[in-house]
Amino acid sequence: MKNTFDKLRASNDTAKKALALHKKLGGKIRIQPAMLVRNRADLSLVYTPGVAAVSSYVAKNPKEARVYTGKGRMVAVISDGSAVLGLGNIGALGALPVMEGKCALFKTFADVNAIPLVLDTQDADEIVETVLRVAPAFGGINLEDIASPKCFDIERRVIEALDIPVMHDDQHGTAIVVLAALINALKVVGKSMGSVKIVISGAGAAGTAVARLLHAAGARHILMLDSRGIIDATRPESHKKQLAQFTNLEHQKGGLKEALSGADVLIGVSGPGLAKAADIALMAPGAIVFAMANPVPEIMPDEAKKGGAAVIGTGRSDFPNQINNSLAFPGIFRGALDHHVTKITDQMKLKAAKAIASLVAKPTANKIVPDMFDKRVASAVAKVIR
Amino acid sequence: MKNTFDKLRASNDTAKKALALHKKLGGKIRIQPAMLVRNRADLSLVYTPGVAAVSSYVAKNPKEARVYTGKGRMVAVISDGSAVLGLGNIGALGALPVMEGKCALFKTFADVNAIPLVLDTQDADEIVETVLRVAPAFGGINLEDIASPKCFDIERRVIEALDIPVMHDDQHGTAIVVLAALINALKVVGKSMGSVKIVISGAGAAGTAVARLLHAAGARHILMLDSRGIIDATRPESHKKQLAQFTNLEHQKGGLKEALSGADVLIGVSGPGLAKAADIALMAPGAIVFAMANPVPEIMPDEAKKGGAAVIGTGRSDFPNQINNSLAFPGIFRGALDHHVTKITDQMKLKAAKAIASLVAKPTANKIVPDMFDKRVASAVAKVIR
Repeated sequence: MKNTFDKLRASNDTAKKALALHKKLGGKIRIQPAMLVRNRADLSLVYTPGVAAVSSYVAKNPKEARVYTGKGRMVAVISDGSAVLGLGNIGALGALPVMEGKCALFKTFADVNAIPLVLDTQDADEIVETVLRVAPAFGGINLEDIASPKCFDIERRVIEALDIPVMHDDQHGTAIVVLAALINALKVVGKSMGSVKIVISGAGAAGTAVARLLHAAGARHILMLDSRGIIDATRPESHKKQLAQFTNLEHQKGGLKEALSGADVLIGVSGPGLAKAADIALMAPGAIVFAMANPVPEIMPDEAKKGGAAVIGTGRSDFPNQINNSLAFPGIFRGALDHHVTKITDQMKLKAAKAIASLVAKPTANKIVPDMFDKRVASAVAKVIR
Repeated sequence: MKNTFDKLRASNDTAKKALALHKKLGGKIRIQPAMLVRNRADLSLVYTPGVAAVSSYVAKNPKEARVYTGKGRMVAVISDGSAVLGLGNIGALGALPVMEGKCALFKTFADVNAIPLVLDTQDADEIVETVLRVAPAFGGINLEDIASPKCFDIERRVIEALDIPVMHDDQHGTAIVVLAALINALKVVGKSMGSVKIVISGAGAAGTAVARLLHAAGARHILMLDSRGIIDATRPESHKKQLAQFTNLEHQKGGLKEALSGADVLIGVSGPGLAKAADIALMAPGAIVFAMANPVPEIMPDEAKKGGAAVIGTGRSDFPNQINNSLAFPGIFRGALDHHVTKITDQMKLKAAKAIASLVAKPTANKIVPDMFDKRVASAVAKVIR
């Protein structure tokens, strides 16, 4: 078996290949006209003079825009580049390759037309303003890689202002796939959602949404950790106070070791270098470890295994159990567009997680989530988003 | 020959067909991934973990974004819907079919990837702000159908702030194709740019840019008309005062009839119902009439002919001599992207007009501009944008 060092070398090789591929492609999406424009007759229908009739009609009947224009099919993937992958605040241009990648996956997995927009502002008010101003052409808004805690406020305000579905994928996409994976991992180890002790490392965008959705799914023993240790109600930040309303109900104090002692589940959404084998060894038998940071997880799978973890998942495509948002977001927006959904509710997110989990008939330690290339995934998710 | 009434009936038929086509298509552009994503190996290059290396690299080397992302290939077609075709201020959704049409033509004529953005604001400051904030993902900005006079200020501010080419097509695209058509029409009637008396009806976005570019091309006798008649230096509006610095140098007064008396060229960029055969009859022999309003021109071609016009052009695809922006904008942006042009200068616009005109080897009354489907057009224009 490869050790950690070898894995990192393999990863450098991936980096080189990825750079070469991106240079060759010069962008990962292209625009394609929906019809051939071969002659003047075609042109008089798709452009002047015919288009004037369509413009007049849509202006008078704005609800028909989703029928007569691309509004009913087009999603904007919007980021300010303030929290890109595990790379942090690398700005708009740094975020663009990730947003383009998402757009390519939207089309590949769910035939959703999506375009990347990266913003030359990181101010919450300006981000909200800008998203609202560009919204008319779109049937949905996928916010992406916006730093916590401003992402919570931005998402709430945009959702309230628009009548199209809006989702910060780092929050809810992650929460949905983590819940799907946990449903099946619990089956593998024979434990139940209501009884397990769950430790979530990271109280940012992903950690907060994961905690909320697991709680909505029946989890009752959740501890959340940030860089200062286990979160409780004494924390000054309002969003952490809110987390303490349904987590750490026994008012436990301490850091990672105290939290992991006897825990059943560790969900890492904080970044590389969180835990070692010895930390995992503190957990209860049949431990479940999801190390979600990308590209370098909180603990490498072989190290978690050394510590005794029974089920291990990461966000990466080069290990088993890839708990990646790509299982959720394409189907979420496909369903929202198909069913004219205006808000994505918690009930829809729970149903989406169950739909993903249900596609693995007999979960095992190495197979708790369906393959991302399993063609059933997006349509199973889309079906319940209504 | 069909009379005006028959033409309008034909136009209603086009409207019905256009509505049916748009309903069937549900949007005129689609997104296509630039590569197949078939398996985890592909995914690890276009998305996580490989994309992290690309994002890091681009964040550290922002100038490389045009190589490693779609920035070098992608143009935004942006409108606030305040002056759409001849329809006026019909808002963002009403503008969307036109912007989508332009994006389809960008790809069809010049392989330029373009996406439509329609803005939920018509405030000049907010439009400028929004365009600047969404600019990072794009290699060029095609402003479109923004009302005059705010369009002048908006375009100037966006050009100054960005290091990518920005062009309000209603101004400069129109000016380029009008100049191209006029170069050849003058050959047909045997007159010269410096000597002809040119009347431009409409001092909005298009009229202003046409006047400026014709002046730059050597025209020395230009009269501009707006709803109040021939424009002179006594007008209160600053942009009309500026026009009076190089037009109407003989301080002529009056309306359309006074202006047309003995004129060689009438360029209508004001809207339907401008002139009748009797008005055209006031012009000098060998009159050139360009009636550019879309979808209904300032004067129908048969009416202009009745008045004695020797060369007639419109903006429509269903008459001869279609003087349509589509001859210019695809090649302009193709060239700007190919040659890493950061500003589109007057010299480039003049060269583009000459390049278009030169594609008609022997101009005749019914053939002063190349066909829009002439594959040489976009590349001839692109070649000189550098």
